[in-house]
Amino acid sequence: MDIEDIQRTLGGTNKGQSLHDVMRLLYPICRSITGEGVRQTLRQLQQHIPLTIQEVASGTKVFDWTVPLEWNIREAYLATTDGERIVDFQNSNLHVVSYSTPVKGRFKREALEGHLHSLPGHPDWIPYRTSYYKENWGFCLTHRQLLGLQDPEYDVCIDSSLRPGSLSYGECLLPGETPEEVLISCHVCHPSLCNDNLSGIAVATCLAKAMSGMARKYSYRFLFVPGTIGSITWLAHNRERTHFIRHGIVLTGVGDSGSVTYKRSRQGNAHIDRVLEHVLKHRASGHRSVDFSPYGYDERQYCSPGFNLPVGCFMRTTHGEYPEYHTSADNLAFVTPEALQDSLEILLQAIYVLENDVVPLSLNPYCEPQLGKRGLYRAIAGQKEGAQREMALLWVLNMADGTHSLLDIAERANTSFEIINAAARALKECNLLQEASPRISKGDGGDRL
Amino acid sequence: MDIEDIQRTLGGTNKGQSLHDVMRLLYPICRSITGEGVRQTLRQLQQHIPLTIQEVASGTKVFDWTVPLEWNIREAYLATTDGERIVDFQNSNLHVVSYSTPVKGRFKREALEGHLHSLPGHPDWIPYRTSYYKENWGFCLTHRQLLGLQDPEYDVCIDSSLRPGSLSYGECLLPGETPEEVLISCHVCHPSLCNDNLSGIAVATCLAKAMSGMARKYSYRFLFVPGTIGSITWLAHNRERTHFIRHGIVLTGVGDSGSVTYKRSRQGNAHIDRVLEHVLKHRASGHRSVDFSPYGYDERQYCSPGFNLPVGCFMRTTHGEYPEYHTSADNLAFVTPEALQDSLEILLQAIYVLENDVVPLSLNPYCEPQLGKRGLYRAIAGQKEGAQREMALLWVLNMADGTHSLLDIAERANTSFEIINAAARALKECNLLQEASPRISKGDGGDRL
Amino acid sequence: MDIEDIQRTLGGTNKGQSLHDVMRLLYPICRSITGEGVRQTLRQLQQHIPLTIQEVASGTKVFDWTVPLEWNIREAYLATTDGERIVDFQNSNLHVVSYSTPVKGRFKREALEGHLHSLPGHPDWIPYRTSYYKENWGFCLTHRQLLGLQDPEYDVCIDSSLRPGSLSYGECLLPGETPEEVLISCHVCHPSLCNDNLSGIAVATCLAKAMSGMARKYSYRFLFVPGTIGSITWLAHNRERTHFIRHGIVLTGVGDSGSVTYKRSRQGNAHIDRVLEHVLKHRASGHRSVDFSPYGYDERQYCSPGFNLPVGCFMRTTHGEYPEYHTSADNLAFVTPEALQDSLEILLQAIYVLENDVVPLSLNPYCEPQLGKRGLYRAIAGQKEGAQREMALLWVLNMADGTHSLLDIAERANTSFEIINAAARALKECNLLQEASPRISKGDGGDRL
Repeated sequence: MDIEDIQRTLGGTNKGQSLHDVMRLLYPICRSITGEGVRQTLRQLQQHIPLTIQEVASGTKVFDWTVPLEWNIREAYLATTDGERIVDFQNSNLHVVSYSTPVKGRFKREALEGHLHSLPGHPDWIPYRTSYYKENWGFCLTHRQLLGLQDPEYDVCIDSSLRPGSLSYGECLLPGETPEEVLISCHVCHPSLCNDNLSGIAVATCLAKAMSGMARKYSYRFLFVPGTIGSITWLAHNRERTHFIRHGIVLTGVGDSGSVTYKRSRQGNAHIDRVLEHVLKHRASGHRSVDFSPYGYDERQYCSPGFNLPVGCFMRTTHGEYPEYHTSADNLAFVTPEALQDSLEILLQAIYVLENDVVPLSLNPYCEPQLGKRGLYRAIAGQKEGAQREMALLWVLNMADGTHSLLDIAERANTSFEIINAAARALKECNLLQEASPRISKGDGGDRL
Repeated sequence: MDIEDIQRTLGGTNKGQSLHDVMRLLYPICRSITGEGVRQTLRQLQQHIPLTIQEVASGTKVFDWTVPLEWNIREAYLATTDGERIVDFQNSNLHVVSYSTPVKGRFKREALEGHLHSLPGHPDWIPYRTSYYKENWGFCLTHRQLLGLQDPEYDVCIDSSLRPGSLSYGECLLPGETPEEVLISCHVCHPSLCNDNLSGIAVATCLAKAMSGMARKYSYRFLFVPGTIGSITWLAHNRERTHFIRHGIVLTGVGDSGSVTYKRSRQGNAHIDRVLEHVLKHRASGHRSVDFSPYGYDERQYCSPGFNLPVGCFMRTTHGEYPEYHTSADNLAFVTPEALQDSLEILLQAIYVLENDVVPLSLNPYCEPQLGKRGLYRAIAGQKEGAQREMALLWVLNMADGTHSLLDIAERANTSFEIINAAARALKECNLLQEASPRISKGDGGDRL
Repeated sequence: MDIEDIQRTLGGTNKGQSLHDVMRLLYPICRSITGEGVRQTLRQLQQHIPLTIQEVASGTKVFDWTVPLEWNIREAYLATTDGERIVDFQNSNLHVVSYSTPVKGRFKREALEGHLHSLPGHPDWIPYRTSYYKENWGFCLTHRQLLGLQDPEYDVCIDSSLRPGSLSYGECLLPGETPEEVLISCHVCHPSLCNDNLSGIAVATCLAKAMSGMARKYSYRFLFVPGTIGSITWLAHNRERTHFIRHGIVLTGVGDSGSVTYKRSRQGNAHIDRVLEHVLKHRASGHRSVDFSPYGYDERQYCSPGFNLPVGCFMRTTHGEYPEYHTSADNLAFVTPEALQDSLEILLQAIYVLENDVVPLSLNPYCEPQLGKRGLYRAIAGQKEGAQREMALLWVLNMADGTHSLLDIAERANTSFEIINAAARALKECNLLQEASPRISKGDGGDRL
């Protein structure tokens, strides 16, 4: 992978807009942790990337968990006894609590109490609720709708099914020069919510498509899994594969207009953590890295102590820190093409670092080599940012003792990896440098916990 | 030891007031580094705790030092030639320089010069002075008294004795499940001074009494020793015992109304240092920890390089940083029941951490276990501080890889040890956790010097 | 070396003025990286110190470089066709670009364009320019002179020679008790520029003279070399000697009135780095230490990865951060006797630390020894800064466990090395301390890169 690969991926058409278009198509589908909605979503993604859809039967034991019954829904409404539908699943799939059991009948207003969910603070928004592991049913509605329910009785219909079936997830493997893998994982279980997580699905799909057209050192595995139970299922069925995972990122909420938050892996200073921190530091300010905590998305499973994989979580505004989170206001307008494009670009830059980070060894370690006679000063000085690039040559030469990777050098020189990598290539072409041994880097892979 | 043990110790009657009452009884006694005053003090403590009084003969060699002659005093005054007593030991035992040699006779005013000590800056306070290792005599008096001495001659009487006898100290050992010891040491050599160190004596006594009624993992050794020579004597006679000391605290000046200062052991990040810092951090702000320095109390001896024991020093306002220090103004009014109670409570919390800190090992390390089906979410969520307690469950599970102690986890989660310990117990009851191996903790016992 | 050695060196006559006088004599000489000017400079230094002048023939291969042809110059001017000399080498040797090839002839004004260098921002200053490794010629002149060149043609004469000869450098070795060396290196290739680097030459010479009259633990090697090619030549010819270099300092720009900047060695926490930081911290504020970077002076060669010697760079205002840098304004007035004296004093203090830093071992490690009976409290208390000196005794005793050097202790105690060293000597005289083993110190010699 080369800098030109990034430019080619991002250039030309408005990439952010095409990411947004992918989301627009997926938006109406009613997804949950199982069911037709997930399958339909994955089949749409197959139009873009070579995605395998895996099915795991209900009842399958996966570590401490069991794959649940498959849930599907055809119709649901809350209606007056006159037949006027007050709340209707057709209008928004958020109206029904996910995994609601089937119900049909007339209920007294008071009997509905515990089954109705609204947001008094945002009276026009529908909340998003689930009840996966406890049998229940319910409706989510705007608070205005709730306040309007003044009749003594209402007719309730949830035409759903909870039956043995399977859990579906998508998997796309792009083999590289080495079987060592970069894992990109996103959850596909949310219905009509955009930032959480159609944004992650769209960006992961675009990333997979772009990577499929590039030379790759690493193999890349993209997982589109229902949250928690999906990653647990994958881990349970691929325990031996985890040995090959060198770096990983969970993608979630990557489309809102806030700054990026990268949450480090449990290891705390895994290579992927250092790479993301480096890339974010050299972009516009506002981005930040935070320490791992055991609450969040599927990094919880990848970073459970038995696996302790080097997997961080890439998001923009953190879940729960924006009011639209888990409501109908997390819609297509909440997610911007610019933010989607920015997320994609950062991820491509991070992958660029992963792909190109090597440990250089100076072939002229005693005193500085004479750069002038090789035209290195000139060749470089003619370009933009000349002084920075000359310093990059000196930094690489000085630190190329076989114990520092290019990322180490970039960090020490407080220069972007791209400039350091360009310097290393120029020196290599002059036979002043060779690659020492890949992936042995100070501070790499330690356990900061 | 359990949280209920702390509540039981502190609850019921006003514990701070009863600590103050203990001090009131000991206040009038004239203590020094040897003599009847120390013995009388230790005998009073025997009414509360099973204290052994040890006697070490004058002249005994203890490392580089020698146990001094025993000093006792019956009477002392400075009087006009008419017989009017201007300064009288009966009014305050601070009036005589401790270890003053006997003297009787008429002195010219000028000849008294070097033998009279006052505080011009605090004209109504009597200073506290000693001359243990250089034969001398003297009176301490208020500066007003000093200014009133206008006669050409005065009669001096110090009816003291310096004779072969012994040095006395008290020792109370409470055996635990293991011979490994927690050392609590306080100095008993100061006469009518309250914060320094009747406060330490009272709190140590109360702590010993409370611990004697609890189940104990560790053995607890309480030492009531004259400063410097007492701890040196104990160390010289118990060199082999020091091998069993795992944690230790010197108590001094624990009754004034200032904030707590914990001075770390010479090791700097001994377990006791981390425990005190943790407990102080989770109480009201204002408390602080400071690095070891070789000036202070008996931690100087416990932390001498040949021993280098993990012994810190717990105090409130640091010695010398309050004007009442080593004057008659360090009296019963200077020490408050509230501060005594606060000191006791912090120490009990620290001991609670010491007693309960173990290294947990998850029995379900691959992915998270399903907490809902075990009622752990519900059981916990019903309690106060529900979210914090749920996070505690996740933190313990995530970090229970056999290399982190509960204190490590509490620090990482920025949660109090008590909440983490409660989570660990709940998980243990569900067979999700067991104890890995006691007292192996990252960052424990290192040498920061 | 003792504190009195420093006082003797600095005391008596105004040392700063005599340093300035040395510079005044060397100022007119036209130095370059080779040639008579360097030889003449080194011969003058031989009047002060036992300096060996080394000659290395042009064409000699030194690592990646080749010793260049020797450059000498007799005369150079730019004149009107009437014979009026507008720019004359006799007035300032900065007027000719160093290593200018010989040229004689009449040139059109336009043809001179690329050969004339001035500073529009400082119209009365002459810039300093070189062209060592690319054959070229040119004049440096004030911008006012340049603006005055309105004639259509000018006569140009540069009577220089570029012929096989040799590169000259000076070397002065002062043997000590051990063959382990302290390297002091300064560059001697600049013509009439004072701060850069007649100041370094003068201070190094004075330092060598002073050290020659003292008892020395270390051997001291002073190098007076042309920049870059000189240090590379020395390293190429003395590769085996570098094994003995324990500490080193490059001296440059040590005479301006700004604060000191010490640039750490590549190792980052070499002993010399810690020593300089310590000395600077205990002097007036404003001084600072900065991390190594591969741009600067000959530390670039000493710290190339194949050598990685513990050599830092001592300067006052950093090169390029003052406008007079590399212009005729870096003259005798720019450099002050006070700054020269201050630089010398700091270097002497650093050497004092190097010479006296040992690892003490307490002979009384169990509890504190009784200082009073040895008169140590008294002896010390009588002196100025008594309390600080008593604390120094306690710190040395407490940390003298055979793993901390006196510098470690000074840093831990936040006290100057001098006071800690005095305490160690007093304790040694009382047989409370001995030297453990030299130069084994925590944190010494690590690699912070």
